[in-house]
Order: sequence, then C-alpha cells, then structure tokens
Amino acid sequence: MFGLIGRMRAQQGKRDELIELLLASTDAMPGCLSYVVAQAEDDADAIWITEVWDSEADHKASLSLPQVQEAIAKARPLIAGFDSHVRTVPVGGAGLPR
Amino acid sequence: MFGLIGRMRAQQGKRDELIELLLASTDAMPGCLSYVVAQAEDDADAIWITEVWDSEADHKASLSLPQVQEAIAKARPLIAGFDSHVRTVPVGGAGLPR
Repeated sequence: MFGLIGRMRAQQGKRDELIELLLASTDAMPGCLSYVVAQAEDDADAIWITEVWDSEADHKASLSLPQVQEAIAKARPLIAGFDSHVRTVPVGGAGLPR
Repeated sequence: MFGLIGRMRAQQGKRDELIELLLASTDAMPGCLSYVVAQAEDDADAIWITEVWDSEADHKASLSLPQVQEAIAKARPLIAGFDSHVRTVPVGGAGLPR
C-alpha cells in the first residue's frame, strides 16, 4: 500500500469551501482505500488529508481523472500553502479492506 | 467525528513488533471508524497512526478496553517516543461510513 499524510492551509476563511471541493472529488477513485479530510483543531485555516492507496501508481493515475483535474483547478486559488506532506507505507488497521 | 494523527518512534529495530501489537488491538473498538497504521518512509523506526472516531468519548472509552489495555502494556517498552500527536475534526471522505 501507499500512503500520504499532508497538512495544507486554505486562504483565510476559505477552509470550508476548500474542504467541499476536496470531498466532492474523492468518489470513484480506483485503488483509493481511504481518503480522510479533517479540520485542524489548532488553526482555523488548516486541513489534514490522509490517504491510503493500493499502490503509488493508483495515486498517480488519480491525478489524471477528470473529476480530480477539475477539483485541482478549482481548489488551487483557495490554497495558501502546504505545511507538511509525507509519504507512508500503510500496513493495515481498522477501516481498510482486508 | 474526532481524529488523531500521530507519529511515534519504536526502539531501534522494534518497529515491526510494535506495529503487530498496534494492529492486533484495533479490532472491535466501538465507535472506531478508521485506524490506519503506516510505516514512515524516511525513518526505519517511525510509525504514523491516523484515527477517526465517532466521538472523543468513544476514543477515551477504547483506552479502557481489555485488549487495548493489554496492547498498551506490551507496547510501552517498545516505544522510544512521540514525534507529534495532533487532534483533528474529520469531516468526511472515502473509506468512512456514510
């Protein structure tokens, strides 16, 4: 499996709008096992995204999906920056397909 | 929903053993929507854990479950420390119950 854990910051006051865009594009992404969008508790503009994919290739392929391309185009002006973005190797746990 | 994203470090060479303990205790935790254990890619001893719960109360209650108590007791000597541990407010995404 392939994972990503990232924290991004929305332009001030734009977090809800950005989250809505992120959630709208996560349906029907082949190989996506988990994609959790969360508000940071300590920063009104920050968003945590944790992703689990069958493989890194599935993640890369998702970036070419029409609904993802569309979401990226709409989201870009709402993003102020990325605080962190790390790659992981998920090994299991509750909520993943067995 | 209530979330946690944490990075812990195992004692040198003990990551696999620690991960096994973490995974063994995640079954049957009421209110646990997702609990993903992942190896850090940049540190052979580091582990990322991302959790999504129905509520913070469910998370707290889980710490009293017999299998979790047992896992904590076994895991403690294998843990070198915590690099980060943040609380989040998950709002949705793929892989969560609707």
